[in-house]
Amino acid sequence: MRKFKQLGLIGCGMMGGSFALAAKKAGLVDFVVGYSKSPQNAEQAKHMKVVDATAASILQAAIGSDLIMVSVPVAATFEVFKALQFGLSPDALIMDVGSTKQSVMEATIKALGVPPSNFVPAHPIAGKEKAGIMEADAGLYLGKRVILTPSDKTAPSFVTMATDVWHALGMAVSRMTAEAHDSIFAAVSHAPHLLAFAYINGLNNQSAAADFLKFAGPGFRDFTRIAASDPDVWRDILIANRKEILKQTGAFQMSLSQLEYAMCVGDPAALRALIEPSSTARSLWEMNAQASPRDAEN
Amino acid sequence: MRKFKQLGLIGCGMMGGSFALAAKKAGLVDFVVGYSKSPQNAEQAKHMKVVDATAASILQAAIGSDLIMVSVPVAATFEVFKALQFGLSPDALIMDVGSTKQSVMEATIKALGVPPSNFVPAHPIAGKEKAGIMEADAGLYLGKRVILTPSDKTAPSFVTMATDVWHALGMAVSRMTAEAHDSIFAAVSHAPHLLAFAYINGLNNQSAAADFLKFAGPGFRDFTRIAASDPDVWRDILIANRKEILKQTGAFQMSLSQLEYAMCVGDPAALRALIEPSSTARSLWEMNAQASPRDAEN
Repeated sequence: MRKFKQLGLIGCGMMGGSFALAAKKAGLVDFVVGYSKSPQNAEQAKHMKVVDATAASILQAAIGSDLIMVSVPVAATFEVFKALQFGLSPDALIMDVGSTKQSVMEATIKALGVPPSNFVPAHPIAGKEKAGIMEADAGLYLGKRVILTPSDKTAPSFVTMATDVWHALGMAVSRMTAEAHDSIFAAVSHAPHLLAFAYINGLNNQSAAADFLKFAGPGFRDFTRIAASDPDVWRDILIANRKEILKQTGAFQMSLSQLEYAMCVGDPAALRALIEPSSTARSLWEMNAQASPRDAEN
Repeated sequence: MRKFKQLGLIGCGMMGGSFALAAKKAGLVDFVVGYSKSPQNAEQAKHMKVVDATAASILQAAIGSDLIMVSVPVAATFEVFKALQFGLSPDALIMDVGSTKQSVMEATIKALGVPPSNFVPAHPIAGKEKAGIMEADAGLYLGKRVILTPSDKTAPSFVTMATDVWHALGMAVSRMTAEAHDSIFAAVSHAPHLLAFAYINGLNNQSAAADFLKFAGPGFRDFTRIAASDPDVWRDILIANRKEILKQTGAFQMSLSQLEYAMCVGDPAALRALIEPSSTARSLWEMNAQASPRDAEN
């Protein structure tokens, strides 16, 4: 498998920092150069040995790097590729870790004029609700799944190279179109985040909020865990993929109305008939996103 | 502390079975008689040594018992107290474990004509989404909190006795009115269950549901865990406490509309300003429902 001389890490946060640590641990890269919008943050990454050197600009992090990882909130993708346009080696493998894939691809095309053949968009199904370089973790990706969404302009050799990289981090690799990705993750990730934000805000806007939170238990804890997610990351996701997400909240609203109607009219049989399929479906579901490597390379 | 000669367990499910096991383990009771609507289920409880003997009727489980635990879906409360009306010893301590408290108190008054002075309504903030006697667990309540909602007709001696029982199981005990209870738990438990049911149904009603579920990850897992809850138990809760729950979904809808509006108009700053308070509030929240015993006897 190809080893890399230098990883250019653009964005030093939880996701990117974890990638740098994991790549080093796996012996994939010799040297990591990190760029962050906040120089202090890049220094912190260096202090934590997540990166070996800091770069003063996006371009500087890319020059001389044969592996480039863009790990910024998705709306910053355009700015990153614009800065890279005159410094990208055609031999370097470029990836990102964004949770929306159509918007990322559109941003690269807008910035570069053409879809870059050496860019393999990636979305690792891993993370935590805590953001920032302090949360970087060499084990974050191990045993998880990554989705690659190459376009028809992406060179197959780079897709293979990207697949090898994620495999080396102990991940299962799936491939699909950016459109399929965005529709699936609107349904199973973006919409739940939106609903969890709305639920917490709905509580917080009530004068009794403090009393409520005092007695909240394990059900609340799990239901709302994702509401603690990073505001910058999720601001960008909710806007970039809004079309698909609003489709999902539409489906949710329909189901909620049915349940509320059965409650309002006090119809226990109708209500049970609405709860039962949900209870059964969720009981039968087993997580597949977390999988042993090489088990589902579709 | 008072020990009990015989526990009459009415309803042999996860909550009641766990109470019987824990009470025996704590040396609170010598003998357990169990009644279940399904004789097979009562036999299973006996086979598992959750109960020592089975009763053929609700009344038979109560006669001779100085501790009676009613652990049935809340809408069955009336039927239980109706069956008990001519067999209740005024010295027996009666409790329940229902998740709504006004409806339970109303049902006892309706069944008995007067509010029973020896009934101490209880809601242990513990459980799991899996139902049934097979899920009974002697450790379910340990380290958790229970809410008692005695009325002004409940004899103080029985409230003290009930408090001692739950303390003996290693629980923190809080006391409040049934009204306060129902308003708080609509907000932090019942509404989240309703939203989780609606979300899963919204997914399931789409033709791509199987594809969606295949790629759902840890965020989905936690957000939807409570959607696997028991349909009978939750049918009753959602109807019994619908007034408070619908107030909560109203507050939720308002917050969701604000978020959706910011997405629709593509206003990143407004969207961030809505996500940030949610993220901060949830990050700062710490679970208090799970607490060491005797730490908050208010």
